[in-house]
Amino acid sequence: MPIRTLVWGENVHEQKNKVVADNYPDGMHNQIAKLLATDSNISVKTTTLQAPEHGCTEAALAETDVLVWWGHAAHGEVKDEVVERVAKHVWQGMGLIVLHSGHFSKIFKRLMGSPCALNWREAGERERLWVINRSHPILAGVGDRIELGHEEMYGEPFLVPEPMETLLVSWFEGGEVFRSGLTWQRGAGRIFYFRPGHETYPTYHDPVVHTVLRNAVHWARNPAPRWRDVAEAPNVPVDKAPEPITAKGASLHRPGEEGYR
Amino acid sequence: MPIRTLVWGENVHEQKNKVVADNYPDGMHNQIAKLLATDSNISVKTTTLQAPEHGCTEAALAETDVLVWWGHAAHGEVKDEVVERVAKHVWQGMGLIVLHSGHFSKIFKRLMGSPCALNWREAGERERLWVINRSHPILAGVGDRIELGHEEMYGEPFLVPEPMETLLVSWFEGGEVFRSGLTWQRGAGRIFYFRPGHETYPTYHDPVVHTVLRNAVHWARNPAPRWRDVAEAPNVPVDKAPEPITAKGASLHRPGEEGYR
Amino acid sequence: MPIRTLVWGENVHEQKNKVVADNYPDGMHNQIAKLLATDSNISVKTTTLQAPEHGCTEAALAETDVLVWWGHAAHGEVKDEVVERVAKHVWQGMGLIVLHSGHFSKIFKRLMGSPCALNWREAGERERLWVINRSHPILAGVGDRIELGHEEMYGEPFLVPEPMETLLVSWFEGGEVFRSGLTWQRGAGRIFYFRPGHETYPTYHDPVVHTVLRNAVHWARNPAPRWRDVAEAPNVPVDKAPEPITAKGASLHRPGEEGYR
Amino acid sequence: MPIRTLVWGENVHEQKNKVVADNYPDGMHNQIAKLLATDSNISVKTTTLQAPEHGCTEAALAETDVLVWWGHAAHGEVKDEVVERVAKHVWQGMGLIVLHSGHFSKIFKRLMGSPCALNWREAGERERLWVINRSHPILAGVGDRIELGHEEMYGEPFLVPEPMETLLVSWFEGGEVFRSGLTWQRGAGRIFYFRPGHETYPTYHDPVVHTVLRNAVHWARNPAPRWRDVAEAPNVPVDKAPEPITAKGASLHRPGEEGYR
Repeated sequence: MPIRTLVWGENVHEQKNKVVADNYPDGMHNQIAKLLATDSNISVKTTTLQAPEHGCTEAALAETDVLVWWGHAAHGEVKDEVVERVAKHVWQGMGLIVLHSGHFSKIFKRLMGSPCALNWREAGERERLWVINRSHPILAGVGDRIELGHEEMYGEPFLVPEPMETLLVSWFEGGEVFRSGLTWQRGAGRIFYFRPGHETYPTYHDPVVHTVLRNAVHWARNPAPRWRDVAEAPNVPVDKAPEPITAKGASLHRPGEEGYR
Repeated sequence: MPIRTLVWGENVHEQKNKVVADNYPDGMHNQIAKLLATDSNISVKTTTLQAPEHGCTEAALAETDVLVWWGHAAHGEVKDEVVERVAKHVWQGMGLIVLHSGHFSKIFKRLMGSPCALNWREAGERERLWVINRSHPILAGVGDRIELGHEEMYGEPFLVPEPMETLLVSWFEGGEVFRSGLTWQRGAGRIFYFRPGHETYPTYHDPVVHTVLRNAVHWARNPAPRWRDVAEAPNVPVDKAPEPITAKGASLHRPGEEGYR
Repeated sequence: MPIRTLVWGENVHEQKNKVVADNYPDGMHNQIAKLLATDSNISVKTTTLQAPEHGCTEAALAETDVLVWWGHAAHGEVKDEVVERVAKHVWQGMGLIVLHSGHFSKIFKRLMGSPCALNWREAGERERLWVINRSHPILAGVGDRIELGHEEMYGEPFLVPEPMETLLVSWFEGGEVFRSGLTWQRGAGRIFYFRPGHETYPTYHDPVVHTVLRNAVHWARNPAPRWRDVAEAPNVPVDKAPEPITAKGASLHRPGEEGYR
Repeated sequence: MPIRTLVWGENVHEQKNKVVADNYPDGMHNQIAKLLATDSNISVKTTTLQAPEHGCTEAALAETDVLVWWGHAAHGEVKDEVVERVAKHVWQGMGLIVLHSGHFSKIFKRLMGSPCALNWREAGERERLWVINRSHPILAGVGDRIELGHEEMYGEPFLVPEPMETLLVSWFEGGEVFRSGLTWQRGAGRIFYFRPGHETYPTYHDPVVHTVLRNAVHWARNPAPRWRDVAEAPNVPVDKAPEPITAKGASLHRPGEEGYR
């Protein structure tokens, strides 16, 4: 069965800024969807900030294997309850790919537990992404580096938890560096952050970027059934303990009672 | 200068439950403060849920090197804005020690970005904490294991991000195991989770537990000045780039303008 | 194409000890091969310590996707040059699954860079392996724990580097715990250590253990072509630098010359 | 008590190459010793490849808290038994700081278990080391970056295990990047790799480099007593099990017998 992928686009600058609209006439989300759909093992839907519940209803997420998130100008407009719902699905096993300015999205900050801050400069400068592990599935077919002629600069320090894997590190013309491809695990869900993708440059028209994103969808998909009770804290009654025991001392809870949250 | 430590106690069960009140007549926070204060390099204050802003005002946190957190029944009553303030201070460098049922506190879940769930049983059973790295500063003087005659059981899976260091793993009489001493880094702040400490058992009267907690305060303290702008994302103007560059292509932002959040 | 798997068995105790011979009449390596071969996506070969170059010739390893290693009594008889060859193949992308007493094999110690020591007791006691991440591919179909009626005890501290993922933690009847399923990455190669498998007990006849081992073979296989020059340190001549530069200052090396090793 | 630090210098190029001799007339090891000794909490000795047992006798290492290692041309001349001895002391708690071309030293490769390869170019180009965590003790007083006018280039991929902490990432004039400050833990020992330090450039005369190295010595020192039996695998006899058990099934070993290695 193809990997059911949902591309979430903020869809704000495409409507307001002529450069962005010329660059991505159908919207960034549709360009990302198009590049993913060239892989017959990926089936793609899109949604945007403007859709009811931002298109991230319980039903939509329940049939999503991997969510791809691009947002920038309107992070603050994403509703907190939707963020919690997306986080829950990641913990249960949904893959998440966060792109570029999504470093400051509510959902990424929620899952990292850290500021996710960085330095930045919008000067259309040259970026070269060095591949740390060329045999990693996300980097299959990429070679030893990715060259982008024009990109926004993101500079360290990038305030994220030490990753599971450091896959890409960027060199910028203006003198900065950035850890541009990083992975984490949260519950059953795999998370990949990929730095490039500023809306005024043609990054999502680059064929190597296409390869990375398609690879990332494959990597982020967890074929296990959703881990529905991943956030529950069930009581194990004394008579259900794996080893026979007798309760000793005082208790706050009656048998089978729920814990505090 | 001694390490300025703030012990936060929920102070609910001490007021309502006779067993807990008998166990900790001055409240759990005061017992924890007392055991820390035997170390002349630690200076201790306490506060509780009931204090204005739960005692975690900007001023109080600004003069705290290490915050120790014990909560259980009233996690939901801690105000979200206080949680954000504490998280900010951890990112800036304040150490955080989270105890026992604090695994479900808002602040711990906020910093982990994961459910922090587990299995549990309140049967006063025997717990044996095995020391993974006896040369770690948190475990100095502890030996190869800690034996507690009566504790609440916490069982895996413990839904936290893979830690920086796994320091303790518990064996329970009833047949479960738990990673009971774990460390993480978030921004400039060090975090230590220590499992034991159920309010109906005399855990905080145990001298080896005292040793661990005093050690943990020393470990969690970051002597660097607070990293005030750790959550900022400053623009680096083109003329301030480390290497001389010329801006190319279109821009969304005017020079020096703030980014989106 | 099926995953080309090579099962390496020490094949010593099967020849000398009646209990082991009765338990595994065809040798342990053949029992492990048999359980893997029930998966039509895995093709299996076996070899033993007694084969020329222990069966780990350059040719044999070049056509191995995943190597499974069981050794115990004769670690010291494995030739150092074979160990280096296996390490090289792991770095280039060959998966490695190390079983039980293989914790003290030369190849495991070589790849960990640490003592790999532990405590142990041979008392046929009950072991219960708790699953930390039930949605991990290695644990698909396993449920929340594995129960083994009779096993050798391995107790913490297990002297290995902090793993990429902690997947299983064991509880032992006699009071110890152990991190029994751990993963690491070395170069392009994935490594999985799985604790159970003492030769005097019927562990490799257990259907859940079969599931774990088959899953582990799938997980450990890296479909990327071997990273042949992973251990090389190539010089990048000045005129091949990605950015135009001019050499400055003194040099030890002539252009294109090899570095020191 | 001051931190007992041993600086190990290869002392080869200083004797053969005029540029290096002019740069470090007393040898690199003595320059490094000198810069460390300005800290009154550090006491420094030096030794070289040419000393008996390379100066790393059991007695010398037993009174060393932190070993600093600079080697390049003669890695192959370091005796394997000395490498094993140093590794043992690191596992027992001795700190290790590996400098620059030491990435290919036997001791670093031994402790990493990976190729430790990289790309390189000797062109005296500009290096800028970006600080990832300015509040880390190793980077106290360093600010947000380190600028070196002339250095050898080391480029990714750097074939080391994912570190405990990524502290510095370098930008090079010629277009490459490198993770230049990394930490790992092996047993009780802390390891810090610091990239700069090519012998033909004045790197160890730079005051910011001095700060990093002095900080690193403080960080790498483990005040715990040496963990003497860190590499032992002791048998726990049945009658010494923490919980009372009875031996079941067959055994390979007689009670108290040693295990296989």
